[in-house]
Amino acid sequence: MFWPQAKTPGSAYNEAMKLLPLITLTTDFGLQDGFVGAMKGVILGLCPAAQIVDITHEIPPQNVLAGALTLAGVFRFFPPGTIHLAVVDPGVGTARRPLAARLGDSFFVGPDNGLFTPIYEEAEKNGWPMEFIHLTNQQYFLPNVSPTFHGRDLFAPVAAHLAAGVPLADLGPALRDPLRIPLPRPERISGGWRGHVVAIDRFGNLATDLTADLLVRLGGVEVRGLQTAYGERPAGSLVALFDSQGRLEIAVVNGSAAARIGAGLGTIVEAVFGPSRESGS
Amino acid sequence: MFWPQAKTPGSAYNEAMKLLPLITLTTDFGLQDGFVGAMKGVILGLCPAAQIVDITHEIPPQNVLAGALTLAGVFRFFPPGTIHLAVVDPGVGTARRPLAARLGDSFFVGPDNGLFTPIYEEAEKNGWPMEFIHLTNQQYFLPNVSPTFHGRDLFAPVAAHLAAGVPLADLGPALRDPLRIPLPRPERISGGWRGHVVAIDRFGNLATDLTADLLVRLGGVEVRGLQTAYGERPAGSLVALFDSQGRLEIAVVNGSAAARIGAGLGTIVEAVFGPSRESGS
Amino acid sequence: MFWPQAKTPGSAYNEAMKLLPLITLTTDFGLQDGFVGAMKGVILGLCPAAQIVDITHEIPPQNVLAGALTLAGVFRFFPPGTIHLAVVDPGVGTARRPLAARLGDSFFVGPDNGLFTPIYEEAEKNGWPMEFIHLTNQQYFLPNVSPTFHGRDLFAPVAAHLAAGVPLADLGPALRDPLRIPLPRPERISGGWRGHVVAIDRFGNLATDLTADLLVRLGGVEVRGLQTAYGERPAGSLVALFDSQGRLEIAVVNGSAAARIGAGLGTIVEAVFGPSRESGS
Repeated sequence: MFWPQAKTPGSAYNEAMKLLPLITLTTDFGLQDGFVGAMKGVILGLCPAAQIVDITHEIPPQNVLAGALTLAGVFRFFPPGTIHLAVVDPGVGTARRPLAARLGDSFFVGPDNGLFTPIYEEAEKNGWPMEFIHLTNQQYFLPNVSPTFHGRDLFAPVAAHLAAGVPLADLGPALRDPLRIPLPRPERISGGWRGHVVAIDRFGNLATDLTADLLVRLGGVEVRGLQTAYGERPAGSLVALFDSQGRLEIAVVNGSAAARIGAGLGTIVEAVFGPSRESGS
Repeated sequence: MFWPQAKTPGSAYNEAMKLLPLITLTTDFGLQDGFVGAMKGVILGLCPAAQIVDITHEIPPQNVLAGALTLAGVFRFFPPGTIHLAVVDPGVGTARRPLAARLGDSFFVGPDNGLFTPIYEEAEKNGWPMEFIHLTNQQYFLPNVSPTFHGRDLFAPVAAHLAAGVPLADLGPALRDPLRIPLPRPERISGGWRGHVVAIDRFGNLATDLTADLLVRLGGVEVRGLQTAYGERPAGSLVALFDSQGRLEIAVVNGSAAARIGAGLGTIVEAVFGPSRESGS
Repeated sequence: MFWPQAKTPGSAYNEAMKLLPLITLTTDFGLQDGFVGAMKGVILGLCPAAQIVDITHEIPPQNVLAGALTLAGVFRFFPPGTIHLAVVDPGVGTARRPLAARLGDSFFVGPDNGLFTPIYEEAEKNGWPMEFIHLTNQQYFLPNVSPTFHGRDLFAPVAAHLAAGVPLADLGPALRDPLRIPLPRPERISGGWRGHVVAIDRFGNLATDLTADLLVRLGGVEVRGLQTAYGERPAGSLVALFDSQGRLEIAVVNGSAAARIGAGLGTIVEAVFGPSRESGS
């Protein structure tokens, strides 16, 4: 999207990306226990030049949907060839399949439990090439795979081998039916849309599944009361604006909308277009 | 300060610094939401060999002063040429200017809202060269700049381009009047100084704006009751000592002075030099 | 253990490890204050190509035992030659000695306060070569060593110099009697073992010092009620299983055993082998 150099095969840029392959991590492991450190040790032991970037390790425990939405909002900011390793894995050690995928220019490694669902949808919408592999080739795992820590023993070594140049097809057979989870979807209601709070960020801002293109598609009605930046209203004002992912967001200027409103994940938000009304304060 | 090799133009050390340019991040974004991950994706997409170091992402939300004091206490430990990217930015999306600066041997990128004030003062005190740029050249931003996330869309790409060798002067016109914020300053009082708690660290230690050189300047009076290390008094003792930045610090050995005293940021601390008195326990 | 390439002197792998030396960090500094950032600045200033991996900075303040157990559970997943820098250091600035060690294929740098005790025991059990150095050679420290922050001023520069190729023996004289701390040990009781909770992870899972080989040594009695993975029982079930370090673990499927049971570090756990009994729910 904004890496013009990436389009030239053999460019210095693409050589650097090959020399310093990029792996991101998205997990619910937290930072207190050394789990993430162990995964990084495994990766760097197998691919010493890998550049590892933490997206977050603070996904709420076992919340696959939260992990899916977080990664889906961020992966597009990484350059072509990036390997996204994600582990939110309540079914670790059971029959759920381990998976690797290529979706467009990016790679994904993690449990086949729906964690990449929004990215499958985005790939389909944009006609990106999609390839799914069931990870069965144990020569790319650690010698002993603990039933409770596939992040370290299975997914980390697979991502490292991918980064070191192992072709996707060597990792196992094709997988045709990756699992998908239901995603929140806004519904039409009389005069507008009913959406949901899909993320509450550190500041207490409430992100929703109502998006700018959706509201624009409403027919060009001017959306009154919307701000374009937090700083346009006095501190403490309750405002609505579009966030950096194009989603309708409810915020309190220099404060927490979550605390003010008492809203949580899934709280219903309605965008109704009627006579001009202040967005409150 | 302690990189003698850095002084030799063309040395292997300086070549390594050019090959692996160093960018630090200081923000109030927290680690739960993927904001920081997105910034790193943008940086590594534009400058694949950048080495990125997190200073902290736990600056209290929108607390420009806390961000300023944290970065000012740390930047000097990074080698010449380091690019310090800092974003504590309550005015994001409004008229506040985006800024890049060279102060001595280091570069700084962030909002022009006073976040670098203590470093301007240090540069002036030491006679370092200072250069300020108003970031206006959009060719170094992402194609679409969200009004709520300049960290990702404007500051991260600018820092990456700087790291990749774009000269500071290409980023926009000179800026002559960078904004400064008021900093806490100790006052003379009868027989000593009145200072303030300026930071409370993870351990509950209270750092103040009373500094070793200030107290020494009091005239060589022996500062009774001061320790040189936590371990000199029994666990649970309330002690005063100079911290690793030369500031007077109030601590409880193996405990929390913040909890014991009930102090917060801005709590007044008086250093009065009279007859010897125990520092308490 | 799983780096076959590491065994070939002069291999491309070993060259990469030399070019990109690996340093891990384990501390109780937290991530809010810039302490860790300052240490990384010092390291990269002295060894620009060092790859730094955070194991954790959330060791409970001054809890040497917790730091020791965390590092001991993770270090083996890092490749040969890794330098493990650990600082949980209540005695900073007092007479406790600063130490560097080579234990098997790995290096360790930190205070001589017992922080590496379980690794000494592992080295002895496996007959690894062991070498201990008392860090006294100040030419490898920062010019001014603060009595309260040896992590930044002493241990970080020593680790960086090691990474840059300084031989261990140049750092100071041999140290013959590194300090050890008592570690929790399971005791035999009638019909089984009495162990202790030694770690509570982010998910509330309770790790104990009862290990798989210990229970196997009980004589091949089938351990009833044990699961092999969390997902084998319904959500909310209380289960016992062996964790990814081979320790008996008490968990609640998709929940917190710590909250359910009200257990803390040191809580006694008994593994008694009698007639089959359900592990509860």
